[in-house]
Amino acid sequence: MTNYTPGLHILSTFRAGSDKLTDIQGCRHLFDGLIESLRLTKTGEVYHAFDSGGFTASICLTESHVSIHTWPEFGKATFDVFLSNFLQDNSDKVRHFYADTLAWFEGTEEAVHHVTR
Amino acid sequence: MTNYTPGLHILSTFRAGSDKLTDIQGCRHLFDGLIESLRLTKTGEVYHAFDSGGFTASICLTESHVSIHTWPEFGKATFDVFLSNFLQDNSDKVRHFYADTLAWFEGTEEAVHHVTR
Repeated sequence: MTNYTPGLHILSTFRAGSDKLTDIQGCRHLFDGLIESLRLTKTGEVYHAFDSGGFTASICLTESHVSIHTWPEFGKATFDVFLSNFLQDNSDKVRHFYADTLAWFEGTEEAVHHVTR
Repeated sequence: MTNYTPGLHILSTFRAGSDKLTDIQGCRHLFDGLIESLRLTKTGEVYHAFDSGGFTASICLTESHVSIHTWPEFGKATFDVFLSNFLQDNSDKVRHFYADTLAWFEGTEEAVHHVTR
């Protein structure tokens, strides 16, 4: 049996403008591009827009998951990316996924947690 | 504007038997029951079984999300439940959801993080 190597999970709350916090299609395009360029494997996904203009999304990956909830009424979003290290060390991909997401949203971090699990 | 009240996110890694770690239908039944009894609102979900017998699931809720990844080859699972406190304090529901999940899996906790975000 291969040993279990904990993976990195980044949890972030960041502030952003309402143009990005309501752009569900732009976010989907961003995530799809990152999943492709980082060679991750999607097993399913949910994107749901709220009447408020905010949206929520969860993307299941064979490596684990990505999720985001946006709150344009509060000017912020909560974001998670967690990749297991089952076959290789994916920690750099976690950091890359988060950095590109924060950049696309032009976000300002309020609180970030790095959990190795 | 209502103030943003951070919600509770529980991240857990627990050990469990392979009978539970491969029971995707049983887990789905558990989660559906908890979502109903706790009066949460599902906006979409993904359940995916791996050839190894393990499975991964992400459930989007209007309140936020639940996800689990099981690793029968390592005898463990990683589980997340996060509910926002937008309309009411859902922290007790987060604890309840986690406690019932751990009980159903007859799990032994390895590492648990409580993040208020």
